[in-house]
Amino acid sequence: MLEKTTRINMLFAFYQPLLTAKQSEYMTLYYEDDYSLGEIAEEYEISRQAVYDNIKRTVKILETYEEKLGLVAVFKKQNDIVTGLRHQITENQWEDPKVTALLNELDEINLY
Amino acid sequence: MLEKTTRINMLFAFYQPLLTAKQSEYMTLYYEDDYSLGEIAEEYEISRQAVYDNIKRTVKILETYEEKLGLVAVFKKQNDIVTGLRHQITENQWEDPKVTALLNELDEINLY
Repeated sequence: MLEKTTRINMLFAFYQPLLTAKQSEYMTLYYEDDYSLGEIAEEYEISRQAVYDNIKRTVKILETYEEKLGLVAVFKKQNDIVTGLRHQITENQWEDPKVTALLNELDEINLY
Repeated sequence: MLEKTTRINMLFAFYQPLLTAKQSEYMTLYYEDDYSLGEIAEEYEISRQAVYDNIKRTVKILETYEEKLGLVAVFKKQNDIVTGLRHQITENQWEDPKVTALLNELDEINLY
């Protein structure tokens, strides 16, 4: 059994484009579509152990990318700041549709 | 002669952690410290052509990372939005040191 965490899902969302097609497929089936290791093994006609090893290695690769680029950390920080801005603007009873639109845009450009 | 653009400097700033030590060194000398290809060649006792090929290949690698992750594009978009927010806040004559601090924080978390 491999650990399933929100963190792994986030890492996968950010760095998926850097993975190989095969790595990406196993990860999608396991973490997004909730297949079991056995089901993936059957689908690809390989051993359950091979699927396990591949996914475990891929998670390590994702962690290495995060150590180097830190996108998940930046994303979280950005989210906190935008939440802070929204809070402050509400508290000040500032109303401006342009500002609201810009804050929504900020949320949308997040890679995740 | 290799092209020197702000774009290449930005790509390098974002994706440098994904390069090898040697790729990183040549890029720093050429794009940040403004060494010539000949000077780098002399420093590392290799041919000018080898330095040229290495840097050219590295720029391609950086472009490939950008195609996959698009961090420079996201950074630019974020910068435009924050500029828009600042403009709108000034125009509305809104004053709040907390909001100013949060906008400054947004600028600072940019990876660049």
